[in-house]
Amino acid sequence: MTSLTLVIGNKNYSSWSMRPWLVLRQADIDFKEVRIPLYWPESAAQLTAWSPSGKVPALHDGEIKVWDSLAICEYLAERFPEKQLWPADATARAVARSISAEMHAGFAALREHLSMNVRARYPGAGRTAESLADIARIVTIWTDCRARFGAGGDFLFGRFGIADAMYAPVVLRFRTYGVELAGAARAYADAVLALPAVQEWVADAVAETERIERFERDASL
Amino acid sequence: MTSLTLVIGNKNYSSWSMRPWLVLRQADIDFKEVRIPLYWPESAAQLTAWSPSGKVPALHDGEIKVWDSLAICEYLAERFPEKQLWPADATARAVARSISAEMHAGFAALREHLSMNVRARYPGAGRTAESLADIARIVTIWTDCRARFGAGGDFLFGRFGIADAMYAPVVLRFRTYGVELAGAARAYADAVLALPAVQEWVADAVAETERIERFERDASL
Ligand SMILES: N[C@@H](CCC(=O)N[C@@H](CS)C(=O)NCC(=O)O)C(=O)O
Ligand SMILES: N[C@@H](CCC(=O)N[C@@H](CS)C(=O)NCC(=O)O)C(=O)O
Repeated sequence: MTSLTLVIGNKNYSSWSMRPWLVLRQADIDFKEVRIPLYWPESAAQLTAWSPSGKVPALHDGEIKVWDSLAICEYLAERFPEKQLWPADATARAVARSISAEMHAGFAALREHLSMNVRARYPGAGRTAESLADIARIVTIWTDCRARFGAGGDFLFGRFGIADAMYAPVVLRFRTYGVELAGAARAYADAVLALPAVQEWVADAVAETERIERFERDASL
Repeated sequence: MTSLTLVIGNKNYSSWSMRPWLVLRQADIDFKEVRIPLYWPESAAQLTAWSPSGKVPALHDGEIKVWDSLAICEYLAERFPEKQLWPADATARAVARSISAEMHAGFAALREHLSMNVRARYPGAGRTAESLADIARIVTIWTDCRARFGAGGDFLFGRFGIADAMYAPVVLRFRTYGVELAGAARAYADAVLALPAVQEWVADAVAETERIERFERDASL
């Protein structure tokens, strides 16, 4: 029996939840999943019962509690060193941590204007000067990492790891909002979409019945 | 000669820069400092020359580049294990990473309404429902950590570490905006203010001559 419980929000909307979930699933680490639908009358009480910050994701490992997506990823990297969740090479690892942290604290315009909604399709929506700059920066990151560190596989640092999990919700956003990609960025996004764990997350998201109005938009916008 | 160069912004305004700078200084790790005044005509060219994200802080360690405050802190923790920049105990370390990540990606209202301005005094300014909730959450974090993990010293986990560096700019903000603290939270803030490295940063900030209008406000607001 696993000692790990990962607490997540709605799979259709909660990009933060997706990140550690993907790390666990893709690394084949056994865990129990607790899903709390967000912005529901019962959400707040459930969130504070599981997570000191009142937010998801949160991980319980026996008595140990870790919350926040990036802290959970660092915790897992340390707890399961054999899974090599960060690149083994120091230079690559420094870049992987940098782009993961950049995603964690940045890209406010992308988050606001292209918020995650796995099952929706809003092609062309959400473009502002700021969100276009965010998209351009992400394409640069993907292209540079693939060129410098990607030789050993299809992901940013070859094999799939935490940095890919941090950017996986962005791949789904680009699909929802019809962001056109070419070359290495397109190939990378396709590799992420083809991952069994991503397909499982998407299937679960599509099957969810809750609808959170603030994250839905008129497709004609 | 040190192989480390830390690139930072204005000490009066750049809370992100302060974090890894404090970690290095307080841990007595030798480094070269490069200061780039922000929002200046020459800033953009200098920022992109040093930092792939075009933002500070960034750390160069020989050929290795790390950017983003939290990634730099993780890099330093790994590079200098003898400095114990994270708590040695696994439960404490999980909490230290969680609250550091919570600071890194959260507290948007605090950032907007109580932005860092080391030398200014705006007592009572910046209070909104959201910034008051952020302040309350921070007081809870400090109080809980001191009670659970603080026995070995004056800081969140006893001795000074990355988690304290993440919250040090908040201590300065609370001084600028006159946020009243009591009990363990007051004692903790005083311990941070008394640190030689914090006093050095504050002295340097006060001596700076640049004024960035968007981070100044009418004290009567
Ligand atoms: N910085 C946090 C962000 C977590 C977060 O904002 N989670 C959202 C859902 S994606 C949440 O729990 N919202 C519920 C609420 O705030 O009531 C992380 O990286 O985990
Ligand atoms: N998430 C980043 C934030 C860095 C950041 O926003 N830095 C600001 C200064 S505090 C900056 O470089 N601004 C200059 C610009 O954007 O032109 C970190 O934690 O280091």
